[in-house]
Amino acid sequence: MSQFENVTVIKQANVYFDGQVISRTLLFADGSRKSLGIMQPGTFTFGTQDAELMEILTGDLEVQLPGTGGWRRIVGGESFEVPADSSFTVKVNELTDYCCSYLP
Amino acid sequence: MSQFENVTVIKQANVYFDGQVISRTLLFADGSRKSLGIMQPGTFTFGTQDAELMEILTGDLEVQLPGTGGWRRIVGGESFEVPADSSFTVKVNELTDYCCSYLP
Repeated sequence: MSQFENVTVIKQANVYFDGQVISRTLLFADGSRKSLGIMQPGTFTFGTQDAELMEILTGDLEVQLPGTGGWRRIVGGESFEVPADSSFTVKVNELTDYCCSYLP
Repeated sequence: MSQFENVTVIKQANVYFDGQVISRTLLFADGSRKSLGIMQPGTFTFGTQDAELMEILTGDLEVQLPGTGGWRRIVGGESFEVPADSSFTVKVNELTDYCCSYLP
């Protein structure tokens, strides 16, 4: 899907890590929520509240998911899921454009 | 206005200057178009096709508009307009969150 229709967009960006990660929040008519964001190269650890589906639109990173010791490489067109109330670390190798869906 | 309702969002980001400037495109039911973007600190020159209203949501920059020799400082809550088919240069002093409206 190349676009989202009939959504509400929060105007102000969400800024993390001094702007090395930024996103915009989208609200859908069914009550669901996504964010569209950009990660600059670097290493970042995020905490989750809801479970998340992270779709990588373009970019190249490695992710360390909770309960796994290793790193998994993810490139544009791939995705990963993160459980609720956990955390994950990404090593972003090149500018990464993502879509994060918050799962029920 | 803190949010835009009933809009179409293009999923993939627009990436400029190696990701130092990124934006997302919003399409409105009336046919108008805006982009919501982030500029990292740095100096950037942009060309315009349509005239643009640049609202600075948060941040701090100086702008040099076409036909003016000088620089004007703009901070969060302020805005500036740029004519169509021209160019402008910004010196971004701190991470800047903006909303650009393309004017008819």
